[in-house]
Amino acid sequence: MTQSRLDKLTASLPTFGLDAVVLNPGPTLKYLTGLNFHLMERPVVLMVAPGQDPVIVLPELELPKVNLFPYKVAAFAYGENPSEWESVFRNAAQSLSLDGKRVGVEPRQMRLLEFRHVKAGAPEADYLDASDALANLRVRKDKEEVNAMRRAVKIAQEALEATIPLIKIGMTEHELASELVVQLLKHGSESEMPFAPIVSAGPNSANPHASPGNRELQSGDLLVVDWGAAYNGYISDLTRTFAVGEVDAECKQIHKIVQEANAAGRAAARPGVPCANVDRAARDVIEKAGYGKYFTHRTGHGIGMEGHEDPYMRGDNMQLLEPGMAFTVEPGIYLTDRNGVRIEDNMVITETGAESLSDMPREIRVVG
Amino acid sequence: MTQSRLDKLTASLPTFGLDAVVLNPGPTLKYLTGLNFHLMERPVVLMVAPGQDPVIVLPELELPKVNLFPYKVAAFAYGENPSEWESVFRNAAQSLSLDGKRVGVEPRQMRLLEFRHVKAGAPEADYLDASDALANLRVRKDKEEVNAMRRAVKIAQEALEATIPLIKIGMTEHELASELVVQLLKHGSESEMPFAPIVSAGPNSANPHASPGNRELQSGDLLVVDWGAAYNGYISDLTRTFAVGEVDAECKQIHKIVQEANAAGRAAARPGVPCANVDRAARDVIEKAGYGKYFTHRTGHGIGMEGHEDPYMRGDNMQLLEPGMAFTVEPGIYLTDRNGVRIEDNMVITETGAESLSDMPREIRVVG
Repeated sequence: MTQSRLDKLTASLPTFGLDAVVLNPGPTLKYLTGLNFHLMERPVVLMVAPGQDPVIVLPELELPKVNLFPYKVAAFAYGENPSEWESVFRNAAQSLSLDGKRVGVEPRQMRLLEFRHVKAGAPEADYLDASDALANLRVRKDKEEVNAMRRAVKIAQEALEATIPLIKIGMTEHELASELVVQLLKHGSESEMPFAPIVSAGPNSANPHASPGNRELQSGDLLVVDWGAAYNGYISDLTRTFAVGEVDAECKQIHKIVQEANAAGRAAARPGVPCANVDRAARDVIEKAGYGKYFTHRTGHGIGMEGHEDPYMRGDNMQLLEPGMAFTVEPGIYLTDRNGVRIEDNMVITETGAESLSDMPREIRVVG
Repeated sequence: MTQSRLDKLTASLPTFGLDAVVLNPGPTLKYLTGLNFHLMERPVVLMVAPGQDPVIVLPELELPKVNLFPYKVAAFAYGENPSEWESVFRNAAQSLSLDGKRVGVEPRQMRLLEFRHVKAGAPEADYLDASDALANLRVRKDKEEVNAMRRAVKIAQEALEATIPLIKIGMTEHELASELVVQLLKHGSESEMPFAPIVSAGPNSANPHASPGNRELQSGDLLVVDWGAAYNGYISDLTRTFAVGEVDAECKQIHKIVQEANAAGRAAARPGVPCANVDRAARDVIEKAGYGKYFTHRTGHGIGMEGHEDPYMRGDNMQLLEPGMAFTVEPGIYLTDRNGVRIEDNMVITETGAESLSDMPREIRVVG
């Protein structure tokens, strides 16, 4: 499977105006090799050019991994002394004649650490943004990938259902987040989580990117739980919002609006429709209810091996949805210093419409 | 505290030939602000130049975090459409007059994503490697930092002790790793783990960077567990090697050698001694025993907010140890396709010598 992915990449490079790509550790490297390499102070890169075996540059202590590659690669290994690294990178780049070529890189993933070594090895190459070429490779999930995501959603939902009965008023956000992680692992998530769960209550729930803190859950809080699991390298990313004890009418009202916006966004998703329409459908509901300015982010992002990847459900994104594309629908309303709501599902475009992989109840539920 | 850290940084910049630094989300940004920002597809950077308020560039939905800064910052926020970002970065860079200046960046942390935006904002700046200036800022841990690391070690040790009785022959590496993570959380680790534990048995233990797989523990395996916890943003990173059932004489022999090498490396650590001496002391034991070529990595790395940071215990590193420096001592012997051993402790240099924060038994213990 990884061989065919590599072939597909090399075949597509001319379309994107590229002669080669250079990747550092991250999801795309894993997608193309099936192997885990870590981002560390020792740079690792895979260099791919059509018609030649791919080249891997790595520390000597990672050499055993070369035998695990699903296809033949040329390995260039370096020792512990960083002063030797430059010549190893140069030999690697020269073996593929990268100099003078159009070499694609991933700006979201590649660090200056790797880039400077690669550039020292091929100073005359033209380094271009290969994000579109690589997103194109990964954006349509195959059946196996969707099944892994389906399982990651199932694990996440079961873990939160197991956590809900343990939620008590007076518990801190951090305690609840830890218990949720324990349940995620017990229900089968990989130990390398896609992201640390967001558990934010009351005023903190109005910050879409809050970290769990020492605030105790209080009656009257809205409680946002944004969590996910990993299975076979694929992830889920869901959000549900709960009422801690009795919440006021405004909390119930904004929850209801967001639930409707979530449903509208999901309903708008199908093949041939621009991503913008999904955003528009969800945003319309919130704007019509008079809360437009409190929905401060896009409606969703692609999902797969990464939490955030193509395609993005953004008002200006005219990219058309295609079967196999997977993404979140996650409208929210954030009333600063008061309360917030977000409801997030994971969708996959089918041949005829769209399927929500997540089906946990979206209605407001009382906890604590 | 973060204010004094910021002052210390700005005061030290001239020494390192820098006029300013630009940081993206990561440990140094957290060290200087006390805040968590995530690496994502939306670039976030902090720009610091002496004599002016620091500048933060961030997405609008992160604006609530600006109020949490421990000192005054000038915020430049951008919306969801990436085409607007360049002008926001330009305004931010111009407010600090970065163009033409010597601007330090962290190559190990900064991605091309952030760098390209920063460079578009200040194309005439000279971008330099600020790793030394920033390592110098963080390398001597204060009492509060050491206490956090001490706690992270205690959590890790208690978690592994709670896991050991659950180890059974026939259990997979992955199952054991998941159980260990559960125990880490139950014993108080932050849910954002420093790294996914390595649990590698038999031939897999001969790969220093193995990922836990579906191999079942067998009698006769050596079992390497490399794990850590996080507490208040500081981490522990320990390794112990166990015997699964009855292991052969060579396994016992290499375990004994590595244990002696670990003790020798720890004993060599004190103020005023070069890092190289710690490496030499541990490596000498293994070389004299005839296994030198099977110890394929340096003896240790610095530890604190990151798993790998300065100072590095490497044979060519003549940096002198100073009170407050914290690092691992982790010699190993790796017999490819057979078995491996590593024993890792976390050390802090004191005024007069060195303290091992970890004290879990290092002798070979039988499990399963």
